[in-house]
Amino acid sequence: MIFGSTGSVGKSALDVLRAQRKQFKVHGLCAYRDIKTLSSQIEEFLPKYVCVVDEGQAQRLKERINTKVKILKGSPGLEEFSHLESDVSLMAISGISCLKPLFTNIQYTKRVALANKESIVAAGDFLFSHAKRHTTEIIPVDSEINALFQLFKMKDDHLHKVYLTASGGALSNCRKKSLKNIQAKDVLAHPTWRMGRRITVDSATLVNKGFEVVETHHFFDVPYENIDIILHRQSMIHALVEFKDKTLFACLYPPDMRIPISFALRYPLRVPHFQGIDFTKEFFLSFKPLNHAQYPLFQIVGEAAKRKDNALAILNACDEVAVDYFLKGKIKFTDLYRAMGYMFEHYPSKKIKSIEDVFYWDNWAREKIQQYLKTLC
Amino acid sequence: MIFGSTGSVGKSALDVLRAQRKQFKVHGLCAYRDIKTLSSQIEEFLPKYVCVVDEGQAQRLKERINTKVKILKGSPGLEEFSHLESDVSLMAISGISCLKPLFTNIQYTKRVALANKESIVAAGDFLFSHAKRHTTEIIPVDSEINALFQLFKMKDDHLHKVYLTASGGALSNCRKKSLKNIQAKDVLAHPTWRMGRRITVDSATLVNKGFEVVETHHFFDVPYENIDIILHRQSMIHALVEFKDKTLFACLYPPDMRIPISFALRYPLRVPHFQGIDFTKEFFLSFKPLNHAQYPLFQIVGEAAKRKDNALAILNACDEVAVDYFLKGKIKFTDLYRAMGYMFEHYPSKKIKSIEDVFYWDNWAREKIQQYLKTLC
Repeated sequence: MIFGSTGSVGKSALDVLRAQRKQFKVHGLCAYRDIKTLSSQIEEFLPKYVCVVDEGQAQRLKERINTKVKILKGSPGLEEFSHLESDVSLMAISGISCLKPLFTNIQYTKRVALANKESIVAAGDFLFSHAKRHTTEIIPVDSEINALFQLFKMKDDHLHKVYLTASGGALSNCRKKSLKNIQAKDVLAHPTWRMGRRITVDSATLVNKGFEVVETHHFFDVPYENIDIILHRQSMIHALVEFKDKTLFACLYPPDMRIPISFALRYPLRVPHFQGIDFTKEFFLSFKPLNHAQYPLFQIVGEAAKRKDNALAILNACDEVAVDYFLKGKIKFTDLYRAMGYMFEHYPSKKIKSIEDVFYWDNWAREKIQQYLKTLC
Repeated sequence: MIFGSTGSVGKSALDVLRAQRKQFKVHGLCAYRDIKTLSSQIEEFLPKYVCVVDEGQAQRLKERINTKVKILKGSPGLEEFSHLESDVSLMAISGISCLKPLFTNIQYTKRVALANKESIVAAGDFLFSHAKRHTTEIIPVDSEINALFQLFKMKDDHLHKVYLTASGGALSNCRKKSLKNIQAKDVLAHPTWRMGRRITVDSATLVNKGFEVVETHHFFDVPYENIDIILHRQSMIHALVEFKDKTLFACLYPPDMRIPISFALRYPLRVPHFQGIDFTKEFFLSFKPLNHAQYPLFQIVGEAAKRKDNALAILNACDEVAVDYFLKGKIKFTDLYRAMGYMFEHYPSKKIKSIEDVFYWDNWAREKIQQYLKTLC
């Protein structure tokens, strides 16, 4: 089952499956609205079910394809799709809209290959206890967290620190002054990874890295103060763990998402389909400390995480909305800082007691930040 | 028990023990002839036994110290010293002279922290089966092999390749033409590690790296064709393992031998006494393929290893003698290539059936290469 088959991770996953035809039968494909890509995926992988969340596009899909397939539509369709049973689900729906299908699907699959970080940021505790109750494995796809997952297999009691690497995004060499005039297209030129649009902006602000810190905390139960970020431009080392005796272990591979996706789908097997690091050529890896002052949103996410209240759910929603405004050219890049900073200072701090609370604060935050953003447009 | 306490590894080991006074009681110290260093080590660590292999120096040691300690002398003394019981022995005697005490001591200790590679190069099969019979652990101290030991804890069945890193030694930027005029002092200026004299020369010729390939094969049962070398100037990554899916794991720490020594002594514990990699400063790691043509002795060692006959025992002996000639200024640097090449072409290939065979061919090779070297002097 692939939730989000037409996005960047979904497409890479189908590349992986294409190379491992015999091992997998694609039971269902789900997309938001890109029916052009979806229909060719349907012809190739012949799933039993497809789901198109945008109802208008769902209607048009019917006319495009000849293959016999059950088409589910809209939110009710996504709900039904999430109830389908499978051995492995890849969760690659972007943003918080992944949370509900993920929460449901955990009950109907044996393993979730999880490529969505917003769900964990907003509802980590609930997801992991829910998965435990249903004995469903959650394996991280995100390259940094996937690297840690692999490194933690050698965990002993002497772990000292965890380092996540960050390429620094498209703007790491920009001076603060020039950030005002940054356009969406500048931000979308990521140096190493080709990814979706929001995550590429989140890479430039390091919100994405802040979310990975939260993921690390939830996946591996590492205290926040033992998680650090290193700027590493080449995105070849994805994470490092340091033991008390100062020995470090690093997990490396070329910036190719198919490698961690394949790992998450086939673990504990490892399948040889990809190009590794080419040691027949000279290359360099660079490491630089993070200049925290350059990334105010990273700091805000870090502080929010430590509060253990509704702050992360709120910030995640705000970021999704604000980035959308920026990508549409309605606000400046620096307005992302302003808007998130404003919300972080003015939200009512409440404990989150259920997954419904997550949805409540998510909605609340979307409304509030839109009101604020409109004053900036 | 420390075999070779006055050498570079022995001194680092005592640094480690100094920081962990409560965990260790030094039972015995053994040195070849540096009684000045040894006597201050005796005053500080108060061992029950010391051994000085050079008999003249052993006599003079008595006059230097006030501490009550049993002094063992010469080869018979070393033999007696090797029979002393202990929990851990550090084997840091240089060269093939380590083999006999190591072989004996394996029967009287629970763990050998092994910092001598010549023994494994010349007699790997015998040593490992001997250790197995006596259920004695052998833990490698050598940073590259130690890194692999740590990485292999996460071994699964999908191992594809092992990469050892090499700094390339002092001469990696020398052109072939200028090698003739290289002096001992040029070779001894190693870029990253401070080590003994022979191993520093062996780093420049990459004989040392060839020996590590042999160690890797014996320690971890990796076929020779799956072991590769990468030039990595900074000596921070010590080894890498690559799995079939092209994911790599690297083991990193600053070039400080106390880290792997402490690991080998305290494993599975990890003790926090050392400076780690400083991530608050910018740094680079470089990786370059090995130009095999530049290192003919590395190739010879590799070929010798695959023959599984007496070649490695012979080459090890020849290297020890030839490097000694070079360090004394009797032959040129390029004569190392000539002499080793000559011996490799002219030795009688025989199977090695016992540890006595190893000693026989070691002696044989020493005589033969001396005859040859005298023609070059």
